[in-house]
Amino acid sequence: MLYVLKIAYDGTEYAGWQRQKNAFSVQQCLEEAVLTALHIDVRITASGRTDAGVHAAGQICHFNAELTVPAERMPDCLNVYLPPSIRILEGWEGADGFDACRSAKRKTYRYTVYEGNREHSLLERYATRVEKLPPMEALQEVARLFEGEHDFKAFCASGSSAKTTVRTVYSVQVCPRIEYGVRVLDVFVCGNGFLYNMVRTMVGELLDVASGKRSLESLQEAFATGARHLVGKTFAAKGLTLMSVEY
Amino acid sequence: MLYVLKIAYDGTEYAGWQRQKNAFSVQQCLEEAVLTALHIDVRITASGRTDAGVHAAGQICHFNAELTVPAERMPDCLNVYLPPSIRILEGWEGADGFDACRSAKRKTYRYTVYEGNREHSLLERYATRVEKLPPMEALQEVARLFEGEHDFKAFCASGSSAKTTVRTVYSVQVCPRIEYGVRVLDVFVCGNGFLYNMVRTMVGELLDVASGKRSLESLQEAFATGARHLVGKTFAAKGLTLMSVEY
Repeated sequence: MLYVLKIAYDGTEYAGWQRQKNAFSVQQCLEEAVLTALHIDVRITASGRTDAGVHAAGQICHFNAELTVPAERMPDCLNVYLPPSIRILEGWEGADGFDACRSAKRKTYRYTVYEGNREHSLLERYATRVEKLPPMEALQEVARLFEGEHDFKAFCASGSSAKTTVRTVYSVQVCPRIEYGVRVLDVFVCGNGFLYNMVRTMVGELLDVASGKRSLESLQEAFATGARHLVGKTFAAKGLTLMSVEY
Repeated sequence: MLYVLKIAYDGTEYAGWQRQKNAFSVQQCLEEAVLTALHIDVRITASGRTDAGVHAAGQICHFNAELTVPAERMPDCLNVYLPPSIRILEGWEGADGFDACRSAKRKTYRYTVYEGNREHSLLERYATRVEKLPPMEALQEVARLFEGEHDFKAFCASGSSAKTTVRTVYSVQVCPRIEYGVRVLDVFVCGNGFLYNMVRTMVGELLDVASGKRSLESLQEAFATGARHLVGKTFAAKGLTLMSVEY
């Protein structure tokens, strides 16, 4: 049977999704839970890797196994062998030919920043602090520039093995809220695929341009030339959460 | 000088505010930071204790010291000697006779619950899971019953040394939101003082009565008789956050 799982994880303590030789990964935890609970050695495929420290509220993954366990029972069956920082939320049987990675059509990430002069103990785990949030109108104007099909080469960390750096971003939504009396901004980015570090670099650039540190023209030049030095810094992993994957 | 500090802490790893013999407390961390940074041994007084596992976004505390350090510099001076789970957000000089505990007029706590069949890795740290959230109208109706001056004896854990169990609750606000696609409910409780475990027991009872597990009459009887067995269970500490203290 083709088992498909929807997973949430707090990435703080993990070296990311993918198995590593000398570090602890989400994939390893899940594969070991399957081994312990069901006595089978499987390779679990996710919709895509998430980097070290990145969280997920709706990561999708799949594995094949000749088992009689109904897919709906898989969460209860495996969660007892997982640390609380990883939880299988749902399980279902995949259609013929479904592949969590190759069948993915859209992914939505959220990046969260908060405003403050000092770190806030209750916000630091899932957000990144900035001294000052730019005005909403500026954020919304700059957000529009990322939407559409672009060559995101300038927003891609070196070392990426992607064949093409062209991606389509369907939407960039900036949503302000107040938490613990602090100004918080969620940036939701929905696209057909993302390069290595792309969302974190996009959000850094979004805030820099919206606050006037760099110009709209500089951002347009970054798209045109693909020059990494034209865009801002890559924001920390802890503010990033993979929210959902659509198929 | 009388130094007053506003503090945020993630209570997950602490035995609560108050110093304990064999466990790590927020108070101990702060007092040791003062000792390391300023070479003075002080006793720091908070607006009130928070229990083991309870968080704070706006705990207020004070200490007296003959120092030349301006109160506004205290956060930067001490934060470097504190773990990231404790952060001093602000510092100021207290007026003559100010006492973080005795001068407190109102406190606001937030209790957060979320709806789900299974634990969610990204919500578990600061919220408690319930199978099903009651309807908003019912929650609002029951919330009203807690407001005003009441004898909260039935909502007080045994072992409390409070002289009187009468307290005034100024407001109980129930605020729904969606996080990670999950239904979340924040319950804000503002009052002139709280008994040991009172907010956590109130929220348990609020949800039980609003969902029909117990009746409005049963809640009224609990107020009238003070009988602890008439009210529901005490909800877990991790969902509770001390939001602010007013003077």
